[in-house]
Amino acid sequence: MVSRSGQRRVRTYAAAGVSRSRQATAIAALLANAGYRAPPASGRSISLPGHYAGLIRIGRETIAITTDTVGTKTILAESMGRWEEIGVDAVAVNVNDLASIGARPAGLVDVISCRQPDPNVFEQIGRGIYRGLEAAKCSLLGGETAIVPELLHGVDVGGTAIGFFPNGRNPVTGNRIRPTDVLLGIPSTGLQSNGFTLARRIASESGVSLRSPREGATQSLGEELLTASRIYVAASESLAGQNGTVGFAHISGGGVRNLPRLRRGVQFVLDRWPRPFGIFQWLKEAGGIDLTEMYQTFNMGIGFVVVVRAAAAASALRRLWRAGYADTLIVGHVAPGHGVTMPHFGVDYSSYS
Amino acid sequence: MVSRSGQRRVRTYAAAGVSRSRQATAIAALLANAGYRAPPASGRSISLPGHYAGLIRIGRETIAITTDTVGTKTILAESMGRWEEIGVDAVAVNVNDLASIGARPAGLVDVISCRQPDPNVFEQIGRGIYRGLEAAKCSLLGGETAIVPELLHGVDVGGTAIGFFPNGRNPVTGNRIRPTDVLLGIPSTGLQSNGFTLARRIASESGVSLRSPREGATQSLGEELLTASRIYVAASESLAGQNGTVGFAHISGGGVRNLPRLRRGVQFVLDRWPRPFGIFQWLKEAGGIDLTEMYQTFNMGIGFVVVVRAAAAASALRRLWRAGYADTLIVGHVAPGHGVTMPHFGVDYSSYS
Repeated sequence: MVSRSGQRRVRTYAAAGVSRSRQATAIAALLANAGYRAPPASGRSISLPGHYAGLIRIGRETIAITTDTVGTKTILAESMGRWEEIGVDAVAVNVNDLASIGARPAGLVDVISCRQPDPNVFEQIGRGIYRGLEAAKCSLLGGETAIVPELLHGVDVGGTAIGFFPNGRNPVTGNRIRPTDVLLGIPSTGLQSNGFTLARRIASESGVSLRSPREGATQSLGEELLTASRIYVAASESLAGQNGTVGFAHISGGGVRNLPRLRRGVQFVLDRWPRPFGIFQWLKEAGGIDLTEMYQTFNMGIGFVVVVRAAAAASALRRLWRAGYADTLIVGHVAPGHGVTMPHFGVDYSSYS
Repeated sequence: MVSRSGQRRVRTYAAAGVSRSRQATAIAALLANAGYRAPPASGRSISLPGHYAGLIRIGRETIAITTDTVGTKTILAESMGRWEEIGVDAVAVNVNDLASIGARPAGLVDVISCRQPDPNVFEQIGRGIYRGLEAAKCSLLGGETAIVPELLHGVDVGGTAIGFFPNGRNPVTGNRIRPTDVLLGIPSTGLQSNGFTLARRIASESGVSLRSPREGATQSLGEELLTASRIYVAASESLAGQNGTVGFAHISGGGVRNLPRLRRGVQFVLDRWPRPFGIFQWLKEAGGIDLTEMYQTFNMGIGFVVVVRAAAAASALRRLWRAGYADTLIVGHVAPGHGVTMPHFGVDYSSYS
């Protein structure tokens, strides 16, 4: 959702029976009214359509800010009594958005809202936050804990992260993307933090217990679904500021439909994106979900996409390898046209919506 | 709550049956684990015990960050079908915390979590956010809307704000506060965003309908309770950087017990703080609440306290008058000792806890 008032992420669930048009009307009503822009003495906000991070010029620095929650993945954590992954995810959802604009994460504030403060749960979430922050090299700057049983059924975990552009680095916005550019995909660790309402419904209707493995897996289904998100900060850091690097996309809610947000007027051809495998293949089969729905709900195995000039692809792969992403794949290229196409799957999206 | 991992606000409700010791154990478990501090290349976080804002040095700027929600005031908004005040409050809870450290607000991201997106509700919240941002001269940089019926009963509204210190201004931390300093109090508009669990319980047990006025009032009780928070940014801006200004306190959750957070080893003597009046007097009487509980739950008519050198008090009052706070009162002074005392009420707190 993009508007004059900045970037807005919408986390929603068709499965929950929310009408998309009612939601769009509501968000539009919010944004049409809320979008105040302050005089320059309070910093100059920078409009960046399509991106999840807001940008503002403060004095001599440009600060990026992003806010997000883990969403309903916490319901699964509660079922399993495992919370460390949720802590990692609360960091990941935010710092990976900063990474997607080439900002270096600096600090995070977390927000945990719950009915009852359980010391064991909080300890696990704390360990996960530490793991996530360490991977992102991002300091904890504070947080809020809200014990609000009247507002909440479960536990809501999220945060806000700020980042910056060291040494005069420019934001990586995608506005230089052009046909012939190459798309590199860095694998995810699983569902990360998206698609959980659908995934939990499929799991519960499948008859497979969360405590036992699905066919073909070794760990339990619940543990597999809970796997902590991968953090892509080091990938962004290794490539931001390189001339051949022209775009980053965090494949979060909306799946591959995140790509057209980087740049309109070109087509993202994902002709080498992996076929559904592992947990994604199982969800597709168990749920009877078609590929169009799968690729716009889940990350389908790739959590972060890097767009590079064709001539820079080999050096970018080497840099990613050195940064700890030796499993990066070439997943496609940019062509004339618009939207996203996955020709070998017969999947086609015209835009992010 | 203060710890090595930075600032943490805890919003809780004794009325909701949450054990304070269990809560303290849980928060301690979170903080003992979560507090990662990044290497300097990611910015240098600045430890500032006692304050609600986190600080980090990024390049050539110091950035302040604060996160908070409106809490259960939204339950009252829902009962009344009025939401604009909640939008103002979502800004106020955050920018007033920035004001309390002398940071100029630059940008806000809002987070609205709800069961169903109601366009009318969102429009009203949007209008309120705009009003709040305009009063704070703070830009909207983005936000998140989470439609999560499985997690929420009601509507949760909050945000995160960032601010900065223009022209080399130093943070106002309270560490120079000393006996003989004078305490100036700027009135609140009512409950602002704190004490709503208790206030709603008193209102519901009082037999007074939210739709009709309490004794002595003209507007309905619901409207009176909902009154939007006052924003103190212009007060902070008019005094931060002045040599005689040594502290600011946002009187939020914890009431006057926020004062000792500014400085230990001195006593805040509130011998001229107003007696309970208006809605506060009514809540005290209707609920049979003692003064000690009242002054640590509600702001009791003063939303922001400025600590100045005695010699600077007159000029500070003039500056506040010009900035739009002509109703500022002298509410007390600083003395040797510790904690907060209200000698004419027989109320005494040894610390913020």
